[in-house]
Amino acid sequence: MRAPHTLLSFSPSRVPSLLRQGKMTIAVVGLGRIGLPTAAILSKAGALVLGADINEEVVSSVNRGRCKFVDEPGLPQMVRDQVKAGRLQATTDVRRAVSRSDISIISVPTPVDDRKTPDYTAVKAASATIGHSLRKGSVVVVESTVGPGTVENLIQPILEAESGLKAGKDFGLASAPERSDPGNILGNMATVPRVVGATDPRTLRIISALYRTALGVNVIQARNPKTANAIKLTENLFRDVNIAFANEFSLLFEKLGIDAIEVINGCATKYNFLPHYPGAGVGGPCLTSNSYYLISEGVRAGNIPYLIRMAREINDRMPDHVVELVSEALNEVGKTVRGSRIALLGVAYKPNIKDVQLTPAEEIFKRITEMGGEISIHDPMYEGEMVFGTKVKSIDGAVVGADCVIIATGHKEFKSLNLQILAKQMRSRVLVDGRNLVDPGDAIRAGFAYRGVGRGR
Amino acid sequence: MRAPHTLLSFSPSRVPSLLRQGKMTIAVVGLGRIGLPTAAILSKAGALVLGADINEEVVSSVNRGRCKFVDEPGLPQMVRDQVKAGRLQATTDVRRAVSRSDISIISVPTPVDDRKTPDYTAVKAASATIGHSLRKGSVVVVESTVGPGTVENLIQPILEAESGLKAGKDFGLASAPERSDPGNILGNMATVPRVVGATDPRTLRIISALYRTALGVNVIQARNPKTANAIKLTENLFRDVNIAFANEFSLLFEKLGIDAIEVINGCATKYNFLPHYPGAGVGGPCLTSNSYYLISEGVRAGNIPYLIRMAREINDRMPDHVVELVSEALNEVGKTVRGSRIALLGVAYKPNIKDVQLTPAEEIFKRITEMGGEISIHDPMYEGEMVFGTKVKSIDGAVVGADCVIIATGHKEFKSLNLQILAKQMRSRVLVDGRNLVDPGDAIRAGFAYRGVGRGR
Repeated sequence: MRAPHTLLSFSPSRVPSLLRQGKMTIAVVGLGRIGLPTAAILSKAGALVLGADINEEVVSSVNRGRCKFVDEPGLPQMVRDQVKAGRLQATTDVRRAVSRSDISIISVPTPVDDRKTPDYTAVKAASATIGHSLRKGSVVVVESTVGPGTVENLIQPILEAESGLKAGKDFGLASAPERSDPGNILGNMATVPRVVGATDPRTLRIISALYRTALGVNVIQARNPKTANAIKLTENLFRDVNIAFANEFSLLFEKLGIDAIEVINGCATKYNFLPHYPGAGVGGPCLTSNSYYLISEGVRAGNIPYLIRMAREINDRMPDHVVELVSEALNEVGKTVRGSRIALLGVAYKPNIKDVQLTPAEEIFKRITEMGGEISIHDPMYEGEMVFGTKVKSIDGAVVGADCVIIATGHKEFKSLNLQILAKQMRSRVLVDGRNLVDPGDAIRAGFAYRGVGRGR
Repeated sequence: MRAPHTLLSFSPSRVPSLLRQGKMTIAVVGLGRIGLPTAAILSKAGALVLGADINEEVVSSVNRGRCKFVDEPGLPQMVRDQVKAGRLQATTDVRRAVSRSDISIISVPTPVDDRKTPDYTAVKAASATIGHSLRKGSVVVVESTVGPGTVENLIQPILEAESGLKAGKDFGLASAPERSDPGNILGNMATVPRVVGATDPRTLRIISALYRTALGVNVIQARNPKTANAIKLTENLFRDVNIAFANEFSLLFEKLGIDAIEVINGCATKYNFLPHYPGAGVGGPCLTSNSYYLISEGVRAGNIPYLIRMAREINDRMPDHVVELVSEALNEVGKTVRGSRIALLGVAYKPNIKDVQLTPAEEIFKRITEMGGEISIHDPMYEGEMVFGTKVKSIDGAVVGADCVIIATGHKEFKSLNLQILAKQMRSRVLVDGRNLVDPGDAIRAGFAYRGVGRGR
């Protein structure tokens, strides 16, 4: 699709055919775990996709048809196919990509800094670059997770100042936050309804049609971008709060000699209960930061959501609790952390993915190291690679001769640990289960000094 | 069933036939909203039920076949039928009822006092009375909601001291907490699995068989009474915490100009979200106190569950927020609470039931009265009766000539309020919706100065 026709001059009903006939060009800015699948899906749906990233390595890797997210089922193949078909092209030249595109999608990371303040540096930089090259009649879509109001009060002013154009008039601006869980991005993108909010009704209809067509999902039309962003944050905060609730009562139940897992499974037999389980901590780029995007808006509005903040802090303390359980269990066999050989099973922040961003396992690793434990790590996703500055061993390499095994990630491989064999391989039999994978009775019968989060003694 | 055979001497497999053949006598101590339906169901299942209550009025009312819980579908009829059949007999003589029974069920209230400490007075009194008359080989079941450990550490010692018998040996002791929601007690009792924990395996099997047979539900066998009680508390706390989460983000979203209801409904399109809605507050005898049973155990164990406590406090503050919205909305039409005629719609603590225990509506009533508002109340369940020291009016009696209408309970009658007619009946058009029943657009189109919890301006 070339001038004189611009995207906003078309009827929204034409979006499906424009897309399928290859008449739409889309820039995806940021080729990470969300940006890359978004680019591949849009390309597969018929668009010419210009994947823009400031990281040269990422760009050249994509242009060779490579995908580093090997833990995303279907994604490597899809990226390979779309690059091969010439419909997905990566570039470091964001400006040029945007200037050629009908739609520019912002899909850059939005972390928090070490003071837990949202770090919108990448979003601001992307907005400025896009603004510089923005074509009249085109649309900017923010897929990055941001605080409610950030699109209206931060991104829109930058886009308008850089472009000299007016949002909602000269160009469209929409929020369409991704709602996918790492490890199943393609699956989620094709099933979870997409929430879209826009500055104007025409943009809303066009972008709704885009996602409906390209992803094949229902679209939930929010009344504005900030509502769309609020939806995305709130659903993630719901998880964070409920995991914190589970962690909090589990710590108390440990003291009261009650098995929290038995309690949760009992509660789950009631029609209005949704189970969340305690664990070694919450990691990853989403739940660890999303609360703070909302808290930050709360601070500005003079209305701090304390419950949400406390939930975050409870979850942040869980790695320390795991280390306490380690000390306690080692003590049972007359050992200290100092001088013990400790095998840490699992470094990824969640099961069955290859991602250590803000993983609780790292906190456990650091604390055990500080305390003088000799720690070796194993993770099936990372075997032979360097993680936390140390080489990831095979499972046998990690556990043979160890005094204590800590399960820090719920990888499927760890669910089938043979405790009898494990007991024979170890120097002392101490097992701390941070992910409720092992049956406590089995562990005790196999001779382990056992502790599990929420399991008590 | 008479001596020499005691309940514990029978095989659990005989429980269904003993029950159906009318060979089992059960004392239900406490004939409130849970005790009475429990008594009626057990009677209907074939037991001779001796319903014991220290309140003479309750006892004589039941013996006349009356049931004050007219909001419990099916219950008045069932009580009438069972009393008529002679299988349900009420008495104030708890000792005699217990001395004649194979099973004694404790179903007395467990409130919190004004310092939010569990008030186990009724449970202790019932335990002492039961202990005094307890037959060897019989079973005591605690249905009242209590903190985990209360059965083992408070009730069991009283029963043993009073009876001179040993729990788990001479008599059985079990927890089988009710899990029903007022307004649908019979429905819930017949569908929600019953959680049972006991002091010994034999009691566990016998009481499991009792509930399975009499209620027709699955039984979840917990490993001990405290776990059963923890399950009951945790599932209620889950609701309290999630309502507090919704209330907290809704207050912030009001400030940010975001409609919290739109957000929640958007979130509900994700597979792992369970919607809870903000409102005018949480009332009733359960959620307002259950947190404190656990907090109290936490204080004792040196591990206070702060998140749970904060959740409770957030929910407790919601009536004040409703009053703030009233002030704000009245201000919009140039009025103050002082001197305004205010119609409070709904006094019950939840929709479609006749129960004002710890209802948030009372807090709203008090605060408005303190501020000098002339308040009149309407509730379809209470029309013509005295509530909060004032006579409950018809809807017209309450709203005609009013300056402001507050919806404090989500009764079905209020969902179909005709706003056009309401607007004409009122002196000023101010509407504050504490239960998200009214569409804000409809209210504004009907000329109302409107505020809704979570709706912002």
